[in-house]
Amino acid sequence: MLGAGRSSSACISYLIRNALANDWQITIGDFDESAAKERIGSSKNGTAISFNIENTEASRTAISKVDVVISLIPASFHPLVAKLCLAEKKHLLTASYVSDEMKSFNAEAKSKGLLFLNESGLDPGIDHMSAMQVIDNIKSDGGKLISFESFTGGLIAPDTDPENPWRYKFTWNPRNVVVAGQGTAKYLQDGKFKYVPYQQLFTRTTPIAVPGLGEYDGYANRDSLKYVEAYGLQDCKTVIRGTLRNKGYCSAWNILAQLGCCDESYQLDHVKTMSHMDFIQSFLDSDVHSEEALCKHFHISIDGEEMKRLRWSGLFTQEKIGLEKGTPAQILEYILNKKWKLKSGDKDFIVMWHRFKYLLNGQENEIQAWLTATGEDETQTAMAKTVGLPLAITCKLLLEDKIKSRGVVIPLQKEIYEQVLSELRILGIGLEERHS
Amino acid sequence: MLGAGRSSSACISYLIRNALANDWQITIGDFDESAAKERIGSSKNGTAISFNIENTEASRTAISKVDVVISLIPASFHPLVAKLCLAEKKHLLTASYVSDEMKSFNAEAKSKGLLFLNESGLDPGIDHMSAMQVIDNIKSDGGKLISFESFTGGLIAPDTDPENPWRYKFTWNPRNVVVAGQGTAKYLQDGKFKYVPYQQLFTRTTPIAVPGLGEYDGYANRDSLKYVEAYGLQDCKTVIRGTLRNKGYCSAWNILAQLGCCDESYQLDHVKTMSHMDFIQSFLDSDVHSEEALCKHFHISIDGEEMKRLRWSGLFTQEKIGLEKGTPAQILEYILNKKWKLKSGDKDFIVMWHRFKYLLNGQENEIQAWLTATGEDETQTAMAKTVGLPLAITCKLLLEDKIKSRGVVIPLQKEIYEQVLSELRILGIGLEERHS
Repeated sequence: MLGAGRSSSACISYLIRNALANDWQITIGDFDESAAKERIGSSKNGTAISFNIENTEASRTAISKVDVVISLIPASFHPLVAKLCLAEKKHLLTASYVSDEMKSFNAEAKSKGLLFLNESGLDPGIDHMSAMQVIDNIKSDGGKLISFESFTGGLIAPDTDPENPWRYKFTWNPRNVVVAGQGTAKYLQDGKFKYVPYQQLFTRTTPIAVPGLGEYDGYANRDSLKYVEAYGLQDCKTVIRGTLRNKGYCSAWNILAQLGCCDESYQLDHVKTMSHMDFIQSFLDSDVHSEEALCKHFHISIDGEEMKRLRWSGLFTQEKIGLEKGTPAQILEYILNKKWKLKSGDKDFIVMWHRFKYLLNGQENEIQAWLTATGEDETQTAMAKTVGLPLAITCKLLLEDKIKSRGVVIPLQKEIYEQVLSELRILGIGLEERHS
Repeated sequence: MLGAGRSSSACISYLIRNALANDWQITIGDFDESAAKERIGSSKNGTAISFNIENTEASRTAISKVDVVISLIPASFHPLVAKLCLAEKKHLLTASYVSDEMKSFNAEAKSKGLLFLNESGLDPGIDHMSAMQVIDNIKSDGGKLISFESFTGGLIAPDTDPENPWRYKFTWNPRNVVVAGQGTAKYLQDGKFKYVPYQQLFTRTTPIAVPGLGEYDGYANRDSLKYVEAYGLQDCKTVIRGTLRNKGYCSAWNILAQLGCCDESYQLDHVKTMSHMDFIQSFLDSDVHSEEALCKHFHISIDGEEMKRLRWSGLFTQEKIGLEKGTPAQILEYILNKKWKLKSGDKDFIVMWHRFKYLLNGQENEIQAWLTATGEDETQTAMAKTVGLPLAITCKLLLEDKIKSRGVVIPLQKEIYEQVLSELRILGIGLEERHS
């Protein structure tokens, strides 16, 4: 298991629980060996090691000793991990999107009898599995899918941090939250291809009503078009995957995105002496009365919902940032983390929602399927559970020889999703459905 | 001379004129040999060759036969050209911005006694030279520079295409016009560092009044901060380099930039069957009444100045695009080119404007310096003259051993700018000044 960070706790606990029963040995590698040690606790089936994927020979040695590698390190390193897994003939499981480079390993992985399963966390992951289960059911009943929408969000529980107007905290990699949406989102709407650039993303939101929970804002997530064929949605006029946020989040976040605060392509100057307000001002034309200047530039009210959120995050204060240097994205993450870091007792909250429209006997039908999960505390988060458990379960199934798929795949096969979803449901993670 | 495109005509004519008197031989290389042939005409001092920088051995052979290489091919290829020039010990002159890779060749070029002069066209180029001349004069008079602003635009002459509300046509590489401003502009304003992301660029305009010509809109161009030291502007509170456009251009272009039409990072789907309107619609949420949807999304009036320009460009028609495939940027360029291509008799128009503020004997003074140039026709453009002549003149001076600078440089040295500006003035290209 590579990476002992935020999303690893539930995965590691599950593996260690099962290791005892099956006499497995779990090796946890992290840049920070003590973080790996902490995850293992007193278990005799776990070993913590220091792991740095950029140290190729040590990484190869570590990987050579195991049967399956689960990687939760940043996605950009996965091609390196995959190459070592190919060389050492080891299976690989990740929660990351399949990159073109990862895809290119398909033939070799297959020929070596290896499973390189990706997109097997929450989103992507449980969303793929739960959607495919419904889709396959509709099809086997003779239905014809005409529309598929799927939205997921990692939020906070209603009773957590009640003063926080964003209704959001960092429950997974904060860097990914800050740079989310860069690149162009693509989806299919009413038979037309749609392209949403970053500069439009947070204003092109759709209201999503989740049964029993009320309304969220959804925005398009990456390239939904590539799932049309993978999911078998060729008859659909609408195919969109997206991200859910509580109402008001997107329009406030849009100000930060438009200002340029989420850019990680260059280093800011003079960060050391900068206050939060100086940081914001560096993206504005005027220096006098910057709150007013910002409101004027973006046509928003100084007492409005966007300003309320930005002000709560302390962005207009003279507090020193406290970093020596950084890109805008790194600085924004650092400032936001002062109030968005999970505190003792904080609980996160996951919402996933799908809507399927299909024709059956000439009639249009609809299925909504949704999942919620609440964290236990600031460590045993719903995010860690829903990202980590699908990986851990798949790992167990693979070691038990219950998964036959090989090559670079995502969990759309029945043999994977049936087994994983069924065990997730036992663990309290299951979708509800409403048919109409 | 590498590249026989839009900006090459004046450079080649100048070189051929001087070749006759000095018994020089000019070799013109282009991907399209016939374009190179056309530029040479009947001259006996010119040779046209087919040139493709990606064909390394043929490029090396061509470069090995000359004394100086002038390159007008796209900037991204200049490191390849530079490496061949280093290997074959040849001088290199370009009009392109110095990349980090180009900068890394400095020591080797110097040690081999080679001049790698970059940023020596119009902007960057004449702007550097003319600004440095004024700056050096102010300093030698004992003045202390406190503010420097410099803006340049390649526009069209007032009597050209009078119905064209953009007051703009493609007078240089159209691709560069479409992707202009991507990345973050950086400048110094009233002692503060300012960062303008692409999504803000075309709304963060400054009115620039050029004496005798009226008011233009200026927007920040790339990284002005790196010129603070190069120009010797350490005492300045404001340092900004920018681009000039006629009034109304930026707010209309902003719609295209915000829509996502200028993106060259991915291929659009189904381009073959797309109309202009389909192209625009693919960036909008709604399909019904797209002109209204666009106006609603961007809070602009359907009869307003932005829509007037976009409509004139035919962007809302059902005309087929006529391309098989392309990125959004390639498609936008192709559509715009239907009306923005220079026609017979069209004249382009260059405006460059600097403003220097300085303290002398405790008093604040100001110098404005500006240049205008009008093209002769659609081939002998002011753009080709002002980009090509500084390169051609420098080449001549270098062959006459009148330039001693070596290494990777930009034309800020007195020995370069004095000689080049003085000959440009003889050729009718000179700045006017107003002191106040």
